[in-house]
Amino acid sequence: MALDGEYDPQNIFAKILRGEAPCVRVFEDDAVLSFMDIFPQTRGHTLVLPKSPARNLFDVSEDALTGVINRTRMIAAAVREALQPDGVRIVQFNGAPAGQTVFHLHFHILPVFDGEDFGAHASGGPADAGELEKLAERIRAAI
Amino acid sequence: MALDGEYDPQNIFAKILRGEAPCVRVFEDDAVLSFMDIFPQTRGHTLVLPKSPARNLFDVSEDALTGVINRTRMIAAAVREALQPDGVRIVQFNGAPAGQTVFHLHFHILPVFDGEDFGAHASGGPADAGELEKLAERIRAAI
Repeated sequence: MALDGEYDPQNIFAKILRGEAPCVRVFEDDAVLSFMDIFPQTRGHTLVLPKSPARNLFDVSEDALTGVINRTRMIAAAVREALQPDGVRIVQFNGAPAGQTVFHLHFHILPVFDGEDFGAHASGGPADAGELEKLAERIRAAI
Repeated sequence: MALDGEYDPQNIFAKILRGEAPCVRVFEDDAVLSFMDIFPQTRGHTLVLPKSPARNLFDVSEDALTGVINRTRMIAAAVREALQPDGVRIVQFNGAPAGQTVFHLHFHILPVFDGEDFGAHASGGPADAGELEKLAERIRAAI
């Protein structure tokens, strides 16, 4: 079943966690890493992942899950303060049929702005790195 | 701002928690209540909410959030075992513009089945109570 399987240490988030691939960092501590989604579905789309390896919700430890959800809340509050969205969606996908594309557990923080189409930012490939860095700087300042 | 405001003790989930409104129960303990969504977006759409009052992610306590995410994981595993979906989405909305319709914090567990449209079940009004009860019975048996 696609939801099971071995953790692949060569997935892109594992490489980012090891510093072998770049990211636009928002927050880091001993439990989690948070960075801007390079294919943002909305302005300010931010990811939060545990540092410990887990494919999804079904193989993450209780401690790691507790750590990641509480940091997700803290970072979502900073996203909210920095960008003043009208709403915020928290989303976590398990398995490719559910929309998961990287098989290291992660929570999406999706600010929602009235009058801005959801997903509009996702159609044109990766976001401009400079624009992401500006957003990340504002979010970091609010943490 | 719509994300702030007082908790309304007359919201429908508060009434369900007090036993003043019915639900098709999946799980209950001292921290959470879980029941079938009466307007399911997919077959097996299940909700998990903390018993303590909180409008959303921004006013829930760390303890309550920890409790609800870990029960969400446990119940999602039971949904998976009972219904054998191809994927599972975990979703939590903050604010009406993000899709929140009841202002008591809740996590959605959305099983995803290959070949079944997402949201197909949501178009025809509330689900058949007997059908929901059968699904809940299978999920309860897997907890």
